[in-house]
Amino acid sequence: MAAHHSHTDTIAALATPHGAGAIAVIRLSGNRSIAIMESMLRNKRLEPKKIAGKPSHTAHFGLIVENDIIIDEVLVTIFKAPHSYTGEEVVELSCHGSTYIQQQILQLLYKHGARPAEPGEFTLRAFLNGKFDLSQAEAVADLIASNSATSHQVAMQQMRGGFSNKIKILRDNLVNFASLIELELDFSEEDVEFADRSDLKKLVSSIQQIVDKLIHSFEVGNVIKHGIPVAIVGKPNAGKSTLLNVLLDDDRAIVSDIPGTTRDTIEDEIIIDGVLFRFIDTAGIRTTTDVIEQIGVNKAFEVIKKSAIVIYLFDVHELSRGDLDLEIKLIQEHIGTSQLLIVANKIDVEDMADLKKEYEHIEPIIYISAKEKKGIDALEQKLVSLFDNRTVHTTETIVTNARHVASLHKAAEALQKIQQGLDSRMPGDILALDIRYALNALGEITGEVTSDDLLGNIFSKFCIGK
Amino acid sequence: MAAHHSHTDTIAALATPHGAGAIAVIRLSGNRSIAIMESMLRNKRLEPKKIAGKPSHTAHFGLIVENDIIIDEVLVTIFKAPHSYTGEEVVELSCHGSTYIQQQILQLLYKHGARPAEPGEFTLRAFLNGKFDLSQAEAVADLIASNSATSHQVAMQQMRGGFSNKIKILRDNLVNFASLIELELDFSEEDVEFADRSDLKKLVSSIQQIVDKLIHSFEVGNVIKHGIPVAIVGKPNAGKSTLLNVLLDDDRAIVSDIPGTTRDTIEDEIIIDGVLFRFIDTAGIRTTTDVIEQIGVNKAFEVIKKSAIVIYLFDVHELSRGDLDLEIKLIQEHIGTSQLLIVANKIDVEDMADLKKEYEHIEPIIYISAKEKKGIDALEQKLVSLFDNRTVHTTETIVTNARHVASLHKAAEALQKIQQGLDSRMPGDILALDIRYALNALGEITGEVTSDDLLGNIFSKFCIGK
Repeated sequence: MAAHHSHTDTIAALATPHGAGAIAVIRLSGNRSIAIMESMLRNKRLEPKKIAGKPSHTAHFGLIVENDIIIDEVLVTIFKAPHSYTGEEVVELSCHGSTYIQQQILQLLYKHGARPAEPGEFTLRAFLNGKFDLSQAEAVADLIASNSATSHQVAMQQMRGGFSNKIKILRDNLVNFASLIELELDFSEEDVEFADRSDLKKLVSSIQQIVDKLIHSFEVGNVIKHGIPVAIVGKPNAGKSTLLNVLLDDDRAIVSDIPGTTRDTIEDEIIIDGVLFRFIDTAGIRTTTDVIEQIGVNKAFEVIKKSAIVIYLFDVHELSRGDLDLEIKLIQEHIGTSQLLIVANKIDVEDMADLKKEYEHIEPIIYISAKEKKGIDALEQKLVSLFDNRTVHTTETIVTNARHVASLHKAAEALQKIQQGLDSRMPGDILALDIRYALNALGEITGEVTSDDLLGNIFSKFCIGK
Repeated sequence: MAAHHSHTDTIAALATPHGAGAIAVIRLSGNRSIAIMESMLRNKRLEPKKIAGKPSHTAHFGLIVENDIIIDEVLVTIFKAPHSYTGEEVVELSCHGSTYIQQQILQLLYKHGARPAEPGEFTLRAFLNGKFDLSQAEAVADLIASNSATSHQVAMQQMRGGFSNKIKILRDNLVNFASLIELELDFSEEDVEFADRSDLKKLVSSIQQIVDKLIHSFEVGNVIKHGIPVAIVGKPNAGKSTLLNVLLDDDRAIVSDIPGTTRDTIEDEIIIDGVLFRFIDTAGIRTTTDVIEQIGVNKAFEVIKKSAIVIYLFDVHELSRGDLDLEIKLIQEHIGTSQLLIVANKIDVEDMADLKKEYEHIEPIIYISAKEKKGIDALEQKLVSLFDNRTVHTTETIVTNARHVASLHKAAEALQKIQQGLDSRMPGDILALDIRYALNALGEITGEVTSDDLLGNIFSKFCIGK
């Protein structure tokens, strides 16, 4: 990984998605980028084409020729250090999007002195060159993976430094106290206190509150990133798959193109009003008491417990009011903190007034006909509003990264120890250790404290070319 | 299609392959490209970002902001007319490669006055603005689809005008005579002959030769474009699938990523030494006389007849020399103009000297062990050499486009009539008609003679964004 390679090499990789398209972009970074590119470039009369002397941020047409064979007509844009994505000399080469041409050009670049970029190596270099901190670098990967308005906004805010600034302020405040306490240690024989203990207690308290809020936000952040889990339960003939199909086919419902999330799998992702919902198929759940013992039912209840929202779908013709109440009671026993939404299906041939009277004791309830596509809008709006109730305004800082939460937990632990130390009037050197531990934990998030292993672990999850 | 839309609109489309990647490129063309882009662009302090006054071929960093929400940080490269791909004002916008971001930016571009580009509309505009002729424009699509060294070189040569120049020379020669003959028509009462009939006869003869050669080259061109069809026949236990797998797994064998050409389908595409071979599964062919009447065998023989190369694979342990000779005879009766290559499989446990003596009367024969991966190199080299024998040096002009062949056939027909007319001393006005018909046919290839229908038909087959 990153640790094994020199960061002074010139690296090259395809930056656009794999496959054929109108154009493809190949990116180079490193101090020989322009020289390597120039060595492969010819002008229209097949004479050497000079680009090294051109200003930064300019685009140049040229031919890539090898052994008198024209590989492609390309457009080459040059970026001079430090005014580039990586902070190094960068070349972006735009070629015809044939996979054959892409491969030929990459092979030629390697032959002329570039080496294949590792996953995330462009962004790693941007981080190493101080273009942004670690949490911003991680947000780049989240931004590329974002598939809904909310996941996009959270990643964008993180990439633009919203989260980093918050962490930086917390650290700066602590650093101030840490230096005062460490100053005390230099005068330890004299038993002085430069750092006011009650001020420190107040500060640590306020930092604890912010850290706790950030940790708590991960619950929402995780849901935003991976979709709000919605379990649809109900008897086999209740119309579950018809409802799923209607939701999927709806114009506003964009099915994600992440591999494996197709109609054939057990999960379907649907974006409604910019919010990603992950519908979990609980085919086989039957909630009537007589089948409660069947194999698989316990597993289904696990799914219910893990879902943020549980839709209980029933056929108004099939279930008596008594049976319905029984089933709802049963689900409520297993639902944990999930929110239950009762959906009455197949209302097309029924008298709505009678129905509403029959089920008036149930709240919330939505009346639909999946087959006739009636009531679907209301159901979607209800889902979005249930999400809003639980959650969030994306202007708040939301943690979406498990690594950040782990560091925040470490910081919270250290802050707790500082409080205990202050309460029991621990000596300054003990306090200094805990403060340093808290500072390290916060510094891990932004990369002020880091290691090659950590960087390798983070950037290996990036795609190649970023 | 093309015919229904104004060519003065500003068009926008994703130019890179669909899906998520490190970056994606969106392209705009039309005289409002830069203005539309500028209306959406902000600088780092979220103030309006000016790019309209900047020089052509320069790249600019900016933010795309809508309703105070930052959609993305982008890089915008501007190209001023006529120095662009389309000859119009062009903007290339490079954004983070999230599918969500791609869609958001496209929607914003449409909102700000661009409209979605039709398939091939960028290249259509390049054609309409005289950036290149029709056959060159068509080569752009071929270039993007090219997946082997040969298909790439043929498309590149066509895109760079090799074929167009050839057609242009033929036309220019004919045009000269056409004008002389039409001049005669103006003096028709005087019975003069400005155009020397024997010179015309010689010219038409030489054009006929070139046109015939071009028509004939399509046989090769079609094979280069779509792969050389190779049928592998043999008894079910001969080792066909083992051989196919070995060919597919071989390092030098790149399997094309065209959808539908996976191992599950009946055709496998393999590139050997830059030549695309299309292996056709003839599972079920049994050539022994006792099963000749079975259903499906006739169909299999059709595949054999359509293949350029037929590999007959047999297990050296299973087939006696007499049976082998019988089978080869049977295949030869059905093979048409295809080339037959006999491949002896499972040689691993046999004495090669004995084998070579036993089969010395058969030519060409290759000895392999598919299981032990022996002799595979020799087999691949033989396939490539059989292709070379049949065919070509790609420095020659090769027609790969069915539309061009159709026009060449029309031209050939008209040229034939001119010859007949000259032989029977037809009057100038009849000759002039046939010459005009030949000119039109040739002009269709390069687009000097065209119609909206023709253009619509050609460019609708392009991908969007090209």
